[in-house]
Amino acid sequence: MGDWQIVVDKATKAATTWSSSDPSHRASILESIGRGLDENAERLVQIAADETHLGNARLRGELLRTVFQLGLFAKVLREGSAFEATIDHLDDDWGMGPRPDVRRILIPVGPVVVFAASNFPFAFSTVGGDTASALAAGCPVILKGHPGHPQLTEATAAVVSRVLQAEGVEPGVFSVIYGEDDARRVLLDERVKAGAFTGSFSAGRHLFDLASSRRVPIPFYAEMGSVNPVIVTREAIEVRGKEIAQGYVDSFTLGAGQFCTKPGILLVPSNSEILDDIKGAVEEKEASQLLNDHIASGFSRRLSELSGNPLVKVIRAGQISGQISSPTLLATSGAAFLEGRSDLGTECFGPASLCVEYDNDSQLLDIVRSFEGELTGTIWAQGSEGILFDLTTLLAARVGRVVFNGWPTGVSVTWAMTHGGPYPATTSVLHTSVGTTAIRRFLRPVSFQSMPDHLLPPGLQEENPLRLPRRVDGVLQTGTHSISDKGE
Amino acid sequence: MGDWQIVVDKATKAATTWSSSDPSHRASILESIGRGLDENAERLVQIAADETHLGNARLRGELLRTVFQLGLFAKVLREGSAFEATIDHLDDDWGMGPRPDVRRILIPVGPVVVFAASNFPFAFSTVGGDTASALAAGCPVILKGHPGHPQLTEATAAVVSRVLQAEGVEPGVFSVIYGEDDARRVLLDERVKAGAFTGSFSAGRHLFDLASSRRVPIPFYAEMGSVNPVIVTREAIEVRGKEIAQGYVDSFTLGAGQFCTKPGILLVPSNSEILDDIKGAVEEKEASQLLNDHIASGFSRRLSELSGNPLVKVIRAGQISGQISSPTLLATSGAAFLEGRSDLGTECFGPASLCVEYDNDSQLLDIVRSFEGELTGTIWAQGSEGILFDLTTLLAARVGRVVFNGWPTGVSVTWAMTHGGPYPATTSVLHTSVGTTAIRRFLRPVSFQSMPDHLLPPGLQEENPLRLPRRVDGVLQTGTHSISDKGE
Repeated sequence: MGDWQIVVDKATKAATTWSSSDPSHRASILESIGRGLDENAERLVQIAADETHLGNARLRGELLRTVFQLGLFAKVLREGSAFEATIDHLDDDWGMGPRPDVRRILIPVGPVVVFAASNFPFAFSTVGGDTASALAAGCPVILKGHPGHPQLTEATAAVVSRVLQAEGVEPGVFSVIYGEDDARRVLLDERVKAGAFTGSFSAGRHLFDLASSRRVPIPFYAEMGSVNPVIVTREAIEVRGKEIAQGYVDSFTLGAGQFCTKPGILLVPSNSEILDDIKGAVEEKEASQLLNDHIASGFSRRLSELSGNPLVKVIRAGQISGQISSPTLLATSGAAFLEGRSDLGTECFGPASLCVEYDNDSQLLDIVRSFEGELTGTIWAQGSEGILFDLTTLLAARVGRVVFNGWPTGVSVTWAMTHGGPYPATTSVLHTSVGTTAIRRFLRPVSFQSMPDHLLPPGLQEENPLRLPRRVDGVLQTGTHSISDKGE
Repeated sequence: MGDWQIVVDKATKAATTWSSSDPSHRASILESIGRGLDENAERLVQIAADETHLGNARLRGELLRTVFQLGLFAKVLREGSAFEATIDHLDDDWGMGPRPDVRRILIPVGPVVVFAASNFPFAFSTVGGDTASALAAGCPVILKGHPGHPQLTEATAAVVSRVLQAEGVEPGVFSVIYGEDDARRVLLDERVKAGAFTGSFSAGRHLFDLASSRRVPIPFYAEMGSVNPVIVTREAIEVRGKEIAQGYVDSFTLGAGQFCTKPGILLVPSNSEILDDIKGAVEEKEASQLLNDHIASGFSRRLSELSGNPLVKVIRAGQISGQISSPTLLATSGAAFLEGRSDLGTECFGPASLCVEYDNDSQLLDIVRSFEGELTGTIWAQGSEGILFDLTTLLAARVGRVVFNGWPTGVSVTWAMTHGGPYPATTSVLHTSVGTTAIRRFLRPVSFQSMPDHLLPPGLQEENPLRLPRRVDGVLQTGTHSISDKGE
């Protein structure tokens, strides 16, 4: 029996107790994992810096975010509305005929395989958002470690395992596997009930296809990146063109341009001066080191395609040497972009971005209509431009998050966040991989009809021992305790 | 351009206004459609009876349920929490670093193709639950009419179209197509964003595979039926064996056994007298007419397989003549069922059911563990049996609804209902096709960051003009108006 089979065995076994554990117990475990990461922060950041070339300050911030995320899911578990407990009492006068007592709650789907990403070695890796939300839901996690930071994966997983052991949690609740072949085998194992992934389009789609074509298909949540168009109005440039130029360059070079939310396309009015300001800002940016050879060669190849496209002007060619690269700025016209849409409109993962000069509002709207599915769409404007309503509507229909006078990089972990969007940004337009509602990917409804109270899950028992917010006979009740997250 | 293309064009065009319409407007439209059905009830029921051979009383009840369902979704729209409006105000002290103002709401996914079912010509057909929930979500519906009741489909669609016209709604909000080829073309059209289906396993899986393998995959919600195991304890038989026997036979012969929730398997203790009682009740049942030749021949073929299986005893062979069939009762032992699991444990759509005599609790649990995914699982017990906790836990992990001392047929439309379950009962374990949360299949999240108030959708504006229940800074607020659905 292969290692991967032992891992799935253990996860399946652990699912029984973990799935029925009290949500507040899981909350404590998530907080303990957070404390474990905190206590080992210096060591973990050092390992991460060595393996990923991301700066220490950035990595410290990312670790803080990761710990915070675990704590926020703990809060979600204690607040309890994520389980959507709903009670319809027996009602002989129900409009379609007498209704029995029916009670609904969300329960965990079962073991989940999580594919770690390379570009956020904490927040989207071993114990990042996918792992945290699946564990919170009550699902054991089988983590496929990213080959870009194997030592960090080991070190992080060791922290998690120590916490689980100290808290008396079955070790099968969290396991790590390595290698694409074993990961595929796990994904195809019928005991595994969902998958989550952050990474490239080609890998994400391949895994989605595997998950969908199983004898028993399972949901597969792939977040595959996007070009995150940013629209700048002429009015905005007139008032703060230099600020926007600098902000754009800072955003698309952040983390050496290796963000899923990197602004890959900036739409600016033609004949504005902002291109000069952008060029100036790009020239002042130093070179940075990409995550690994795989990403460096992918970036170099994709950038060559873009730079070599006859529709594209190279405004500033970055210097690329192995994994080291200074930023590249490209430009094209609105008409040329529409013509070369399928070549120019797909992601280039690394420090490069394309400025598109639109001729007028009508062309701008055509360009926005040409986007299919993006994680984010951004508008820089003064607020009173006549086009803004149409722009917002078109973007909302195409992206997971519309940003106004800000930059898409730096996704905050909050109750209202959506990090998702229509395909090809993700394979599941109904869900988010960041924010508190990410837990819903791993929960499914079950109803109980005329069930004796003592056989109901605690969340549905009449006395509400878990003090969950519940909908009772159609009326939302906020539960016996509320929660405020202000000022935390 | 084919008719189906015109239909998709119209639906795509209509999506713009329908998706951004005020939820209370859509609520009024759903109620008007309900009134339209009510006003034409006599005529519609007569057409349905002629086409489906289902009894008038049953059809009148089903129409009532369908009208009620439209009204309940109207209530959901007016109550507003289905849109999950969430507001996180700007917070400089947010734990992972300053957070911008982020606001999240659910918006419609776009045009939906709905495949009507044959066995519920009102409740799961032209303007049944899938259509009602998609329209409620703000999605135009392209309805693939079922060939089993073409005249009823036309008549029902005409009622809907008249209401839409009278209310000034774009006609593309609801269209009907016919034929499998056109339906497949619509499902594969990139402007169509989701699909819903109720019907056979083979058709459901085929369509799910088409939807998943598109260049742009879309969610496809297929409800494909199940065997809905019913477990009876020895204690229950001692106290009310005759009542259970009669209830079982009534349930599996209801609507000529053509319910997705028909109890296809009854698990009873060996050497009990209930089998005699069941046999007696079956013998008193008259023959009934199946929906159409396709279903009659499918039933006959599947029943021959089951009856001819050497592991199965025929307790009472029904008389089958064309579409007319009297009920068939089969029996087998627990050990034989486990041996022939893959042949004996799949649906036989029509008036037949299989009694499985289990030897002891341990074997019963093994049999329950052998079920993969079912719409329902039922327990008849006295309440104090030691096995009940394990039975409930095992069933909850395998079904969408656990029923206690009741019958799975007759799904009530309520806030807490789940009509779904793990594969192969459905292709989407996260969702239900009956009950108020069915709307969620057609909604997806979008977030707005730092957006000026006047550019936000009304549901997210600071003053809450739609008076939605919202989560604000982590705290659930039930909105400025509440709702009670008692006594309606």
